[in-house]
Amino acid sequence: MKDYARGIYAPVRATADSFPSSPAGTARAGVLGATGYTGRELVRLLTRHPQLELVFATSESASSLSVQGRPIELIHASKAVSLEADVVFCCLPSGESGVVTAAFAEAGARAIDLSADLRPPDGAAVYGLTELYREHIREATLVANPGCYPTGVLLALAPLLWLELVSGEAPVIVDAASGVTGAGRSTRPELLFGEVAEDFRAYGTGNGHRHLPEMRWGLEAAGGFQVPLVFTPHLLPVRRGILETIYVPVQPGVTGADVFAAWQGAYKDEPCVELFRDRPPSLVDAVGRSAVCLHACDVGDVPVPMVQLVVALDNLLKGASGQALQNANLMLGFEETLGLPL
Amino acid sequence: MKDYARGIYAPVRATADSFPSSPAGTARAGVLGATGYTGRELVRLLTRHPQLELVFATSESASSLSVQGRPIELIHASKAVSLEADVVFCCLPSGESGVVTAAFAEAGARAIDLSADLRPPDGAAVYGLTELYREHIREATLVANPGCYPTGVLLALAPLLWLELVSGEAPVIVDAASGVTGAGRSTRPELLFGEVAEDFRAYGTGNGHRHLPEMRWGLEAAGGFQVPLVFTPHLLPVRRGILETIYVPVQPGVTGADVFAAWQGAYKDEPCVELFRDRPPSLVDAVGRSAVCLHACDVGDVPVPMVQLVVALDNLLKGASGQALQNANLMLGFEETLGLPL
Amino acid sequence: MKDYARGIYAPVRATADSFPSSPAGTARAGVLGATGYTGRELVRLLTRHPQLELVFATSESASSLSVQGRPIELIHASKAVSLEADVVFCCLPSGESGVVTAAFAEAGARAIDLSADLRPPDGAAVYGLTELYREHIREATLVANPGCYPTGVLLALAPLLWLELVSGEAPVIVDAASGVTGAGRSTRPELLFGEVAEDFRAYGTGNGHRHLPEMRWGLEAAGGFQVPLVFTPHLLPVRRGILETIYVPVQPGVTGADVFAAWQGAYKDEPCVELFRDRPPSLVDAVGRSAVCLHACDVGDVPVPMVQLVVALDNLLKGASGQALQNANLMLGFEETLGLPL
Amino acid sequence: MKDYARGIYAPVRATADSFPSSPAGTARAGVLGATGYTGRELVRLLTRHPQLELVFATSESASSLSVQGRPIELIHASKAVSLEADVVFCCLPSGESGVVTAAFAEAGARAIDLSADLRPPDGAAVYGLTELYREHIREATLVANPGCYPTGVLLALAPLLWLELVSGEAPVIVDAASGVTGAGRSTRPELLFGEVAEDFRAYGTGNGHRHLPEMRWGLEAAGGFQVPLVFTPHLLPVRRGILETIYVPVQPGVTGADVFAAWQGAYKDEPCVELFRDRPPSLVDAVGRSAVCLHACDVGDVPVPMVQLVVALDNLLKGASGQALQNANLMLGFEETLGLPL
Repeated sequence: MKDYARGIYAPVRATADSFPSSPAGTARAGVLGATGYTGRELVRLLTRHPQLELVFATSESASSLSVQGRPIELIHASKAVSLEADVVFCCLPSGESGVVTAAFAEAGARAIDLSADLRPPDGAAVYGLTELYREHIREATLVANPGCYPTGVLLALAPLLWLELVSGEAPVIVDAASGVTGAGRSTRPELLFGEVAEDFRAYGTGNGHRHLPEMRWGLEAAGGFQVPLVFTPHLLPVRRGILETIYVPVQPGVTGADVFAAWQGAYKDEPCVELFRDRPPSLVDAVGRSAVCLHACDVGDVPVPMVQLVVALDNLLKGASGQALQNANLMLGFEETLGLPL
Repeated sequence: MKDYARGIYAPVRATADSFPSSPAGTARAGVLGATGYTGRELVRLLTRHPQLELVFATSESASSLSVQGRPIELIHASKAVSLEADVVFCCLPSGESGVVTAAFAEAGARAIDLSADLRPPDGAAVYGLTELYREHIREATLVANPGCYPTGVLLALAPLLWLELVSGEAPVIVDAASGVTGAGRSTRPELLFGEVAEDFRAYGTGNGHRHLPEMRWGLEAAGGFQVPLVFTPHLLPVRRGILETIYVPVQPGVTGADVFAAWQGAYKDEPCVELFRDRPPSLVDAVGRSAVCLHACDVGDVPVPMVQLVVALDNLLKGASGQALQNANLMLGFEETLGLPL
Repeated sequence: MKDYARGIYAPVRATADSFPSSPAGTARAGVLGATGYTGRELVRLLTRHPQLELVFATSESASSLSVQGRPIELIHASKAVSLEADVVFCCLPSGESGVVTAAFAEAGARAIDLSADLRPPDGAAVYGLTELYREHIREATLVANPGCYPTGVLLALAPLLWLELVSGEAPVIVDAASGVTGAGRSTRPELLFGEVAEDFRAYGTGNGHRHLPEMRWGLEAAGGFQVPLVFTPHLLPVRRGILETIYVPVQPGVTGADVFAAWQGAYKDEPCVELFRDRPPSLVDAVGRSAVCLHACDVGDVPVPMVQLVVALDNLLKGASGQALQNANLMLGFEETLGLPL
Repeated sequence: MKDYARGIYAPVRATADSFPSSPAGTARAGVLGATGYTGRELVRLLTRHPQLELVFATSESASSLSVQGRPIELIHASKAVSLEADVVFCCLPSGESGVVTAAFAEAGARAIDLSADLRPPDGAAVYGLTELYREHIREATLVANPGCYPTGVLLALAPLLWLELVSGEAPVIVDAASGVTGAGRSTRPELLFGEVAEDFRAYGTGNGHRHLPEMRWGLEAAGGFQVPLVFTPHLLPVRRGILETIYVPVQPGVTGADVFAAWQGAYKDEPCVELFRDRPPSLVDAVGRSAVCLHACDVGDVPVPMVQLVVALDNLLKGASGQALQNANLMLGFEETLGLPL
């Protein structure tokens, strides 16, 4: 473990002791903001979790939620405060979510914020990228769940940075595409079916996406230097899933096989990381599962050493609600993948 | 006009004399292979063309084709040879199409091959990228219509290369995505609706796509040096359209505004090139129109000078059948955009 | 022409005199509410119309509109009143649109309302179902453009009712499906891509859709009796198009061929009606064209005489903006299909 | 239980004894034809089943199958014969599948055919519509799994026929729509993404679909008389799911509430039937779950008593592989819903 003291916490690799056995008993969970996509997904996961009981789910407007045919009662957030939950997931809009999550943590619950409010570099919570910050998360009461794009980028690149495979002279270029649920269940006209179907759009061009500081922070925490980064997201006409095609300038002689070996070393015990040796994963390999899928290959015929990565994940599972539940399991001492579709 | 004698022909910029008025009268057109996507699109365009009459359309299997409710009779290719057409569009599969097209050209017709068979660097036909090779196309009897991906890449980059804005030290990275009609109307399982919907896949990773030699040739013809290039296509769950997000290492001080100015200089008289100053085009801006849409912006916070381009085009129009018709108009002395949706 | 005096006007069949030649010159057109789907489609059609000039398009919020890459200036509706237009298309929300349209008609313009406000049975405008009410529309200053579902239902059934082919004892059942643009460009959560993709829903079940009175009125005006009707719409995960599968209890001995012959008699001179003899039309046969596509076939193995109809149309063209333009051409004395994609 | 001796077996309603507890231990399962959609779905379900072990999966062409990232070895069908399985699922094409399934049954395995080969009225296997034929299936060695459309139609209508709610004088009209996986993973051009997206088509119009005899047989077995039926399927641009909108002429005075009560009586202990009281189910309510969703409502303003039903199911789960597994659990004495997503 390198600790360059630049981030709030430095990433930690898994060891044989990382996965303790699960305690008996159950715990109580609450979901704040249950009608958005991440909130609904958490409610759905919690109704199937063998050791977590959903004790409340809130909404400001709706009074019930149908989770695959089963009605879930929703209460107003003001009533949630008095209820006792062991863990609270906060899926409120950014700007509002962080304060509420912190209040629950102060009141004694384990609290996980799925918004951007508490994330690095400015936020004051433990960064909930499970595979890299497991030991910190285990002890935390307040966790900032990572963004969906950063989850893929950081899990793909951290092992390369640990082993100093990356050349810092030219930028790492991340060309990413996400399904619409990544933008949340907001009723903006540009997210209507009539606008999204048969279209494909770049947004945040010119290195302007709001997730960039989080990614830059995570890369520096892993590599110990400011890793130059270009990131362009696109909006896909699909419901779920993120694909990130990453072009990495590497040190001379470094190949796709070296990257694969770095991942094998870093992630060999990880249940939520899947390595694709022979072909790149596509969305359907990742959607419906709380795992990140990784592939690396050489890039021929270029004057600089370069490796290409393809990363796929489900933006609502490993990219949001699934990772939040993975963190909750960890914080409560449960088996880490309990209740997660893998 | 630079002629580095590396390509078959060097690109030529448009001048005031480039667009002569259209002659009176009509000409006869034939389509070989009318049941694939490019063939059907050509038949559809020809039925609306005011000065071209469709005299035959061929198929090995089908006997008729419905073009928006109107039945078109299809004949066997063996019967097409004896019919007299002034211009022939060949939409047969690669490997078969080039020989047939050349035979028609030798028999006296103007012949345009939409397959990859006759394209540079190995093919012996005039390269049909209209805006760059207009004067050569005007005089040609045998034209190789460009690939859909190269059309976007070369129209975007040629003016930058002419003005020596591109740094050749790091590779130009093209991350591209295409709708399914770009793959042709072949009944491969991976193109079934059940496999494409809700998916997004990279293919030809590791710089392995078959269009790369054509692109490298075109970039060298424009720039006079071997432009390093990385190209990754993806398959989109849409029917039509290509979006190319391009990362261009540039000479120090070169900005997105410089790129825009370069395009304005090169394309100010071009009816099939549209410049987007304020936002990147998306698929819906380009689909249904035989035009390429171009946008450039700066990339902030990177250690090397870099400009980002976003290119959108309809793979069946400017990327195939529309450009073929643009070339035919040119070869026959008609107004260049006659019958093209713009 | 039957006039049962039940409707405002009785439908009229086309005659040889129905299609006069177009006068020279141009007229000025305005569009109120240009940012919704029908308004945008009208602006798009008007920019291509050879004899209509778009003099204004309004919006309460937006100041410009991009129509396939071309910017259109939008003005506030309050400024539109003073501008002089020969014809005004009103695409405002129902409840608001009718009053505004009537005001323009009183001010001297030909005015066409695309909302439900002025439609029968309660509205006081001429019903703009072109093929059935052409002579009335030609003389009208205030026209209520039909709903998209009624356009298909009434054009399919009116000729059967004129010839008394329909048995009134059992209900005509219309099972219909529409793309999302039929619901307008409203930002309701249930119209988000994430909710519509991969779904298919019935709505207005139990004969509760708001278009039913308009359809019942139209059927009675054509048949002279109250035609029993069951209508169920569904929401399709496509952008455009309506398909209506209609089950018609008929008089003994009436066959699909009789229905086809009835359509041929009624519509043989109609440019915007297309008969499919051998197969039912699907959405792609109709989308992009301002025409209704009709097919009829026998239903075997049932104890009552029954004929099945399949109707396809583009909800934004023949189902809304295209038909509005067809009506405007008629009202201004232009060739009826001028500027319409067919 | 009514036995009109018209069908091979008459349907049987569930009783308190219908669901015995599951025995300990596991059984071995084989899948013939594992690369089609139903075969892949069975393999996927079997890999998660706690008491069934997948001992072989066959393919004539492929040597492995990726089931959500996990490789499954495929063997040639000729090698499958000698392997010992307790239950065999046959997902081969119709025409081929029935003979193979019967051979496995004769060799001592419990065998379930997912093709149409052995289905009523002509097939000689027990009809595997679990809720109606449970007692027969429990004792069977050879089961014909129902078609996806008949599963919905028969489960919806059988309780109405048992209680003699249906008027037989006018036809029951079933207007149905299915996602593309209902058509199998065959590489027909009309199933390509480029042909299905943005389209919606009726097929088998005029009462010509091959599932009609199976449905007519099932309705007669339940009702004791020949129930007149009109059935029209449509192809939806979605991957999975069937929605059936059904118009049922009923006896005078029968209401939607009566239908709901009939379903409650028939299905109150059924884990794979879900009743929707307040709204019709849509595809997303049913997809991903091996259950049929049922809704009934009155139809107003018609001269004959009529009730409208809306039925939703996942064509690959309750419509095929899920129901096959439900049957296998029953045949092997396991808890009936073991391994099924509900």
